Amino acid sequence: MVLKSINKSAKTALAILFAVSVASSSHLFGQKIPAEKSDVLISKRMFPALEELKEYVAIPNDALVAEDIDKNLIWSQEAFAKRGFKTAILKTGKLPLFSAEKTYPKNTKTVLFYFHLDGQAVRPSEWFQKDPYTTVLKEQSADRTFKEIDWDLLKSDKINDEWRIFARSTSDDKGPIVMLLQALDILAAQNQQPPFNVKVVLDCEEEKGSPGLKDALAQYKNQLMADYLIVMDGPMHATNRPTLTFGCRGGTSFSLTTYGAITQQHSGHFGNYSPDPTFSLAKIISTMKDDDGRVLIDGFYDGIKFDAEAVKIMAAVPDNLTAINDRLQIAEAEKVGKNYQESMQYPSLNVRGLKAAVTGKGGGTIIPEEALAEFGIRLVPETEGARMNLLVKKHIEKLGYTVLDHVPTKLERMAHKKLVFMNSGGAGSPAFRTEVNSPIGDWLRKTVTENFKEQPVIIRIMGGSVPVVPFIQTLGVPAVIVPMVNMDNNQHSPNENLRIGNLRMGIKTCLSILTTPI
Amino acid sequence: MVLKSINKSAKTALAILFAVSVASSSHLFGQKIPAEKSDVLISKRMFPALEELKEYVAIPNDALVAEDIDKNLIWSQEAFAKRGFKTAILKTGKLPLFSAEKTYPKNTKTVLFYFHLDGQAVRPSEWFQKDPYTTVLKEQSADRTFKEIDWDLLKSDKINDEWRIFARSTSDDKGPIVMLLQALDILAAQNQQPPFNVKVVLDCEEEKGSPGLKDALAQYKNQLMADYLIVMDGPMHATNRPTLTFGCRGGTSFSLTTYGAITQQHSGHFGNYSPDPTFSLAKIISTMKDDDGRVLIDGFYDGIKFDAEAVKIMAAVPDNLTAINDRLQIAEAEKVGKNYQESMQYPSLNVRGLKAAVTGKGGGTIIPEEALAEFGIRLVPETEGARMNLLVKKHIEKLGYTVLDHVPTKLERMAHKKLVFMNSGGAGSPAFRTEVNSPIGDWLRKTVTENFKEQPVIIRIMGGSVPVVPFIQTLGVPAVIVPMVNMDNNQHSPNENLRIGNLRMGIKTCLSILTTPI
Repeated sequence: MVLKSINKSAKTALAILFAVSVASSSHLFGQKIPAEKSDVLISKRMFPALEELKEYVAIPNDALVAEDIDKNLIWSQEAFAKRGFKTAILKTGKLPLFSAEKTYPKNTKTVLFYFHLDGQAVRPSEWFQKDPYTTVLKEQSADRTFKEIDWDLLKSDKINDEWRIFARSTSDDKGPIVMLLQALDILAAQNQQPPFNVKVVLDCEEEKGSPGLKDALAQYKNQLMADYLIVMDGPMHATNRPTLTFGCRGGTSFSLTTYGAITQQHSGHFGNYSPDPTFSLAKIISTMKDDDGRVLIDGFYDGIKFDAEAVKIMAAVPDNLTAINDRLQIAEAEKVGKNYQESMQYPSLNVRGLKAAVTGKGGGTIIPEEALAEFGIRLVPETEGARMNLLVKKHIEKLGYTVLDHVPTKLERMAHKKLVFMNSGGAGSPAFRTEVNSPIGDWLRKTVTENFKEQPVIIRIMGGSVPVVPFIQTLGVPAVIVPMVNMDNNQHSPNENLRIGNLRMGIKTCLSILTTPI
Repeated sequence: MVLKSINKSAKTALAILFAVSVASSSHLFGQKIPAEKSDVLISKRMFPALEELKEYVAIPNDALVAEDIDKNLIWSQEAFAKRGFKTAILKTGKLPLFSAEKTYPKNTKTVLFYFHLDGQAVRPSEWFQKDPYTTVLKEQSADRTFKEIDWDLLKSDKINDEWRIFARSTSDDKGPIVMLLQALDILAAQNQQPPFNVKVVLDCEEEKGSPGLKDALAQYKNQLMADYLIVMDGPMHATNRPTLTFGCRGGTSFSLTTYGAITQQHSGHFGNYSPDPTFSLAKIISTMKDDDGRVLIDGFYDGIKFDAEAVKIMAAVPDNLTAINDRLQIAEAEKVGKNYQESMQYPSLNVRGLKAAVTGKGGGTIIPEEALAEFGIRLVPETEGARMNLLVKKHIEKLGYTVLDHVPTKLERMAHKKLVFMNSGGAGSPAFRTEVNSPIGDWLRKTVTENFKEQPVIIRIMGGSVPVVPFIQTLGVPAVIVPMVNMDNNQHSPNENLRIGNLRMGIKTCLSILTTPI
C-alpha cells in the first residue's frame, strides 16, 4: 500500500482511516425488504444522500491533478470505512485504485462493484453556476431552462423528483457511488446483510482511459476477483426505465494519407498536370460504404449473427427513432441493422476528420500536397481490431494502391502512381458482451422485475466504449453494466446534473441488488 | 486627377512634377539600331539601370499601405516625366492608376505597356538579407547558395550575367518597368524615336487582384486605348529563352458541403446509425475525375479544339517534363493533354481544401456534422465560369443529390437523404487568348527573331491567371504577355531576385520592341 502521490497530511489522515477500516462489521443477516417499505426508507434517506453527494462532489476530481485525486481517496476511504469496509489503496504505474471489501461469514459468493471517482475537466465559464464543484438545486421552468432554488427545500418530505442537482460528477460517476453507500446504510439500519460479499473498486482515471485499471490486474487480481462484476456508470435508456447493459463496443482507428506533389502547387500552372491527392482519397473512401451506410469491405461483418431471442431482445428496446431522427435532423438513418439496437451489434466505420490544405480564410488557389482522412472503427466481440485494420488494408490494395506503413520516400512517390500511407491503430480497445441468458443476466433481471414491477430495458451491446472492458476481459468475470443516472445529465459537458428521481431509483436499484440472493 | 490617398507634401511634389511632365518631347526620328550596337549600348547602361532599379525598389510597395504606394507614384511620375512623358494619376474607387503617354507627330499607332508597381507583402525574418527593400548583389557559390558581394562590382565592365540582385519587386514587377525606362534612354541617346506612340499604365494593386484596374475602364477608356497591349509581368519560360505568351487561364470556384446530423455525434452511440457526411462528399468527388485526372463532368471540355498549327506550337515548347516530375516527386502527371502545354489549354478542376471536424490533436471519436470541399476551376476562353459551375451542379444532381444554394433548413435536412450545399463562385475571372497568327503576334515574333536571332518560346495559353485579363477584355485591344524575368526569381516569396542577364535581356527586348515598326 504505497501512497505515491499523496501528500504528508493526507497520509496521516489515511493512516487513521485504515486503522478504523479494519474493524470488523457487526451487521446481522435479515430478510428481504418489501418494495413498499423500501420506498419509504429511501424517501427518508434522500436528504442525507444529497448532502453526502454534495460533500463528495465538492472535492475537485480532474485526474490530471493528483493532489485532488488524493483528497477524493481520503473521502472515499472514510465513507466506506464508516460502513465497515476494509479499504486499500492499490498502487499502479499510474494513479492508484481504491478498493473496499466487506465479507460476511455465511456468504460464499462475491459481487464486485465498479465505479470511478474522477470526473471530466471543467471550464467554469461555460457553467450556469458559480462553481462546477459546488452543487446547486434547480427546477425546470416553463421555458425549459433550469433556475436555481433553495437547497433546503430538499429537507421537506415533498421533494420533487423532477428537480435536479447540478455539479461535475453528480451523475458521472459519484452519484452512483453514493447510491450504493446509501443503500448499504438502509440495509444496515434494518439490521440486514447482503446475501453475498461486497467488493468495490473505484477507478481514479476513467475519464483518461483507465490506465491504472489495466496496470492493476497483474498485481491485484486476487484482491479484485469476484463471481460477478457490476459496472455502475453511464446513463439509463432514454425512457428512464431500469436498464441492464450486457455489452459495449470497442474501438480502433486508422488514418489514410494520399499524396500529390511534394509541396503544394499553383493550380493555374499545375492544374491538369500535377496529381490531386484529394481525388484519390475520395475514391478510396467512396468504395468503403454504400449509400445506406453499409460497409463494403470484404469480411467486415464476418461472424456476426443473432438468434431469435437476441432479435426479440433488440426489438423490445423502446427506442423512439422518430424523436432521435428529429433531434439529429436526418432524413433517414444508415441501414446496417433493422433497428437502432441491431445496428450497434455491428462494427461501424466513420471518418472522424478530413483535411487537405486550408479551407475558408487563408485558403489558396492551389493543389494540396496531401489529403488526410482519420477513421474510427467501433468493434464488437466478433471483430478484433487488428484484423479489421488488415481488412481495410487489403481492401485498399485491391483498388490498386500500394499501402505503406510510413510516409513515402521520394523513390516510393516516384515509383507508385497510386500510393497511400495507412497509419493503423492495431488492436485498439476490445468490445465485450455477456450473454443475456446467463446466471448473472437471470439474477439481475429478476432483481429489477421483482423490485420495480416491470421488465428492465435490455441492451445487448451498447454503441459506445468504456475503458473498463479490458479489465472485465482480463478478470474473466461475468459483467453487466447497471446504469442509474438520467440520459440527459450533460455527462462530460458543462452543467452536468442528476435528476432527483434518478437518485431515488438508483438507491432502490442498489438496495434491490443487495437484497437479492445469487 | 484627384490624389485621394496622397499626403500634403507628396501633393506638392506631384504638382511640380506634373508641371515638368507637360513639357513636350524634342526627340527626333532615327533608324533601327543594329543588334551588335544595341548590345554594346545596353552594356554601358547596366550600372545606371541597376542603380535606378535599386532606388525604385527601396520604396516599400505593399498595396495595403496607401502612403507607400503614393511614394511609388511620385517616383514613377518623376521617372517618366524625365523621359518626356505626360503623366497622370487616374483616380478609381480603389487605389489610383498611374498613366504616362508620349506621342510623336508622325506616329499613327499606339502601344500600351502594362506593369504594376506594387509588390507582395514581406516578412523580413524569412529573407537572407537585412531589409527586403534594400537591394543586395549576390553570387551563387559552388554549394548553390547565394552569397552577397560588393555592389560596386557592378561598376566594372565585366559584369557577370549569373549574378543576381535580391529585393522585393526586383522581378515582380519593378524590374520590367526599369527595363522599359532604360530602353527609352538608349533610344533617346541615339536621338531616335519609337515608330509608335507609347502609353504606359502602372497598376498599384496587382497583387491584390487589380480592383482599381477594372474600375478605371469606364472612366478612362479613351486615355488607355491603344492598338496593341503588351503586358510586361511574370517570368520567362524555364529555359530563359525569349518568351511570348498569348493567353492565360481564368478561374472560378465553388464549394460543396454535405451534411450528417445537425451536430457532431458520438461515433460509439451513433456509428451505423447517423449518416456520415464525409462518405457522401467522397462519393461526389470520386465521380468527378478519372484516375488519370480527366474530368468526367458532362460538357466540361466542350468547345476546345486545336488546329495542326496550334498542336505544333504547343509541342515546340521545350518543357523538360522529366525534370518537372522529379521536382514535384510524382510518378506520372495527369493526362488531360498530350503534353504540359496541351494540358493548359483545358479547364482544370482541383480540390483546393478539404475539411471535416478536426484531424490530429484535438480530434475526437465522432461523426462529423458536415464535410466541406472547396474547388478551383481554371478556365480557358471556351469555358465560361458560370456555365462550368452549372455543369458541376447538373452533374451532382444526376447523382441523385438535391443541390441547394444555401445552408439547408431543418425541413430540407429531414426531407432529403442526399443533400448538398453548393456555393458557386459564378463567372469568376475570364481567360484570354490572342491568336498567335495575328498582326500583334507576327509583329512580336518578328521583333524577337530579328533581334535575338532565335525563335521565341510561344505559349498559347499559360496555366496561371493574371488580374489584367478583365482589363484586356474590356479594352478589346489585342494583347500579348512579354515576360522578361528569370523563372526562378522567387516571385511572391522571400528572397525575390532578378538575374543580371535577365535585366540585360529585358532592356534588349524593350529596345527591340521600341525600334520595330508595327
